[in-house]
Amino acid sequence: MNGLYHLGELAGGEVEALAARALALRAGAPARRFEGLALGLLFLNPSLRTQASFQRAAGRLGFDLVQLAGGAQGVWGLETRDGQVMDGAAAEHVREAAGVLGRYVDLLAVRAFAGSRDLAEDLRDPVLQGFRTHAGVPVVNMESALWHPCQALADRVTLEQHAVPAPTRFVLTWAWHPKPLPHAVPNSTLCMAAQRGMECVVLRPPGFALHADALAEAHRLAAASGGSVRESEDRAEALAGATVVYAKSWGSLAHWGDADAEARHRAPLRDWCVGSDWMARAAPGARFLHCLPVRRNVVVSDAVLDGPASVVLDQAENRLHAQTALLERLAVAVTARPAATAAKAAAAMESPA
Amino acid sequence: MNGLYHLGELAGGEVEALAARALALRAGAPARRFEGLALGLLFLNPSLRTQASFQRAAGRLGFDLVQLAGGAQGVWGLETRDGQVMDGAAAEHVREAAGVLGRYVDLLAVRAFAGSRDLAEDLRDPVLQGFRTHAGVPVVNMESALWHPCQALADRVTLEQHAVPAPTRFVLTWAWHPKPLPHAVPNSTLCMAAQRGMECVVLRPPGFALHADALAEAHRLAAASGGSVRESEDRAEALAGATVVYAKSWGSLAHWGDADAEARHRAPLRDWCVGSDWMARAAPGARFLHCLPVRRNVVVSDAVLDGPASVVLDQAENRLHAQTALLERLAVAVTARPAATAAKAAAAMESPA
Amino acid sequence: MNGLYHLGELAGGEVEALAARALALRAGAPARRFEGLALGLLFLNPSLRTQASFQRAAGRLGFDLVQLAGGAQGVWGLETRDGQVMDGAAAEHVREAAGVLGRYVDLLAVRAFAGSRDLAEDLRDPVLQGFRTHAGVPVVNMESALWHPCQALADRVTLEQHAVPAPTRFVLTWAWHPKPLPHAVPNSTLCMAAQRGMECVVLRPPGFALHADALAEAHRLAAASGGSVRESEDRAEALAGATVVYAKSWGSLAHWGDADAEARHRAPLRDWCVGSDWMARAAPGARFLHCLPVRRNVVVSDAVLDGPASVVLDQAENRLHAQTALLERLAVAVTARPAATAAKAAAAMESPA
Repeated sequence: MNGLYHLGELAGGEVEALAARALALRAGAPARRFEGLALGLLFLNPSLRTQASFQRAAGRLGFDLVQLAGGAQGVWGLETRDGQVMDGAAAEHVREAAGVLGRYVDLLAVRAFAGSRDLAEDLRDPVLQGFRTHAGVPVVNMESALWHPCQALADRVTLEQHAVPAPTRFVLTWAWHPKPLPHAVPNSTLCMAAQRGMECVVLRPPGFALHADALAEAHRLAAASGGSVRESEDRAEALAGATVVYAKSWGSLAHWGDADAEARHRAPLRDWCVGSDWMARAAPGARFLHCLPVRRNVVVSDAVLDGPASVVLDQAENRLHAQTALLERLAVAVTARPAATAAKAAAAMESPA
Repeated sequence: MNGLYHLGELAGGEVEALAARALALRAGAPARRFEGLALGLLFLNPSLRTQASFQRAAGRLGFDLVQLAGGAQGVWGLETRDGQVMDGAAAEHVREAAGVLGRYVDLLAVRAFAGSRDLAEDLRDPVLQGFRTHAGVPVVNMESALWHPCQALADRVTLEQHAVPAPTRFVLTWAWHPKPLPHAVPNSTLCMAAQRGMECVVLRPPGFALHADALAEAHRLAAASGGSVRESEDRAEALAGATVVYAKSWGSLAHWGDADAEARHRAPLRDWCVGSDWMARAAPGARFLHCLPVRRNVVVSDAVLDGPASVVLDQAENRLHAQTALLERLAVAVTARPAATAAKAAAAMESPA
Repeated sequence: MNGLYHLGELAGGEVEALAARALALRAGAPARRFEGLALGLLFLNPSLRTQASFQRAAGRLGFDLVQLAGGAQGVWGLETRDGQVMDGAAAEHVREAAGVLGRYVDLLAVRAFAGSRDLAEDLRDPVLQGFRTHAGVPVVNMESALWHPCQALADRVTLEQHAVPAPTRFVLTWAWHPKPLPHAVPNSTLCMAAQRGMECVVLRPPGFALHADALAEAHRLAAASGGSVRESEDRAEALAGATVVYAKSWGSLAHWGDADAEARHRAPLRDWCVGSDWMARAAPGARFLHCLPVRRNVVVSDAVLDGPASVVLDQAENRLHAQTALLERLAVAVTARPAATAAKAAAAMESPA
């Protein structure tokens, strides 16, 4: 295991083992300590849970932290395309940014949302792919244009924690939101549930399909696990008997980069707000999940969010345990090759001329 | 002791004990170490002393740090009112922000100034009260709309350090400033001096009274300690025999949220700048205090600030020692209930279905 | 050694010893540990390498970190001039900012670029000089208006690592860039090469001379080391036989603060981009250096930057090792005077009146 870009890259057993380790950490098992190892965190977008849980995980594991952010007082604007004449806004190429950070830290985690202007560019997932290619150390995806594997792993841990049976119905439902949001979370949690062998239903209005590549990946994982994936526009049908209702808003691919057209398209859809009537259609004891932050009474009603079905705080807490388990595993792999590192350092010293 | 919102919440003996511990730490006593405990710091406003002194205190105590800030690259904008349809600027409710951070850290410190637009809202002190209600862990106020208890505790430590006798005159004087500033510092230091049993005089021009609730709280504390509190508009009278001149600017409650009217009101008041002539009226050996940052030759003259009366750097240094003492005390309380924590963690694990 | 403002302040032997220690650290020698010592980092400008490498160095050395940045959510805007009536944008004077931080930390590092508006002000180097004067603890310059000694030290380490013979030609060449940049890096690396005894040539178009003071300092250092310094506008002549080609853009002093005039002046100079033809004129095995971030195909071509001559990633990595060596040395000096510190603390306690 060399970093983590998309949870579906891991074999089912690996995900299961990480989830089990996260639950053990949650129950109080001590994390291993890796004194002298450094973790770099690069945030190019806002964050509360991700920043806080990665910092805390680093503390538990004894890592040294290197923390960087974008913005006016942060790192330089990044170019990701090769062969450009860089006379525009970007002052640094991801080749150098990644290559340099890889010299300073042993593990590197990066957050870089979709730009939400150019679909083709977002599908390239340019920042994360740039760092993975050029860092020379394992890279963890803290949410990219396409995937949010740490959220998906935390979601998995939450399903295990609450003992949601695998062969039951997982409904990922679209919700209205004032802005068109990226697809990383819905892509990732759908694939997680598919890999767990669940009966996955993507409930969403016309025009809000997930990208064909993400759906294909979910189908691939479901096929391997005995699960299934389908889409639905029929709320009553989809929710019937669901054990999990996972709410999330995302933007329409048909209007990607055209916020006005998107706004017109979604204007009539404000009733896509998960209320108690939605949960009433689900199975008894069904759980409500959301990755947070969540807009109350827009994406989900206060009654559902504050009610007994909601496990959103457990989900958020599990970010910490899931990431501790993941980083622990990556650190074990890194420290298993000290000889290689020493050799590299020695080779970098040239004999005097 | 479960967090700290307002210094006056503590019994007089508790404040005294914290101040004594701070002075011991200042003199070189080692702080206790709490390896494995995590402190979260959330800054929604600018800061130099507060950020630096809390970070340093965390280092002394061996805490793991989780550091978050607001702004474009920081945490999400927060809603604090219940029952809102969150389709505006705020992407997260304080219920979730607090609840999540309380899952990641053992102690949480938050800085959130008055908005200075809506007095009724500022009087609710919405962000700090939201975090205190929903975090589930002790919350330390790093300056809210109404109170700045860590500054007040540092001020108290400074008075003890410089052996200012308790039953002498403490003058809190308003000063001119280009902007209408919040009341957290004047409220807090006035209450601190009242609780210490001092003869407190609030010297300020017409229209710049502190809020009646803060004055009532100061009177309550003075009554218990044998001190007194009164207001004055007469500089010569107020300063006569003062052992402490504490300068601070604050906005007029009569014009709260109306910066233009405020500016007109305060325009003729630029002579409210503490000069050597002010100090000459005070008692021999009187001390000049200010919480910093301070605008030189606007709030106080260079001559006073750089002269022998000024103890502003000691005051700032005492932020570190006061907060170390406070966090040490809170950490002792937190670690005294490990069984409870372990039980909570165990309870959160459900048995598989 | 009490902080580091400009590398040329150090004797040649001191620089040599720091470079040797940096190479030992690079090769895997353990850094000394200084538990309980605190390093403050104050960033008033963007940074990737500097932030990351200082954080990592602090981790290696076991320091507690205090990290501050400028900007809307950071420290207060700073006034640096004495005697000002501070009723403008700056809310804090460097006297207080420095004095306070010096109470919290044992070592303080500050980054504050040239303002690039007023040459006389930039030549005063006001922020760094203010911190050096008022902090009361050793101050490390993480790039000021005039100097970037940590970059220069890393450059020196890189020359030693790659065994570039001292008595050979070091060409510092200007390059085109869309913005007029400060002079700290070219000033510093030129002086470093001069102090190393190299034959230094500053290659630049008419109107882009470095400041006379910086050139005089380079001449002084060259005179002491047996090196030399001269300027050239002739690319072919300057590059012939060079063992180092160090590219960097900088603004014209003749148009300082007038970006439009500067832009017109540099408009015809876009061919000042280091290409393979430039390197072909240099000595066999010549090295290409740049401090990063670098604009590809503007300052240097992809072919050169990705080719075998380029050692820019080693240069960046050496920031870490050079700074670790520097901070280690400063920390040894600080911890050698614990008695003085304890005495100061005791003196600050007055006996009760």
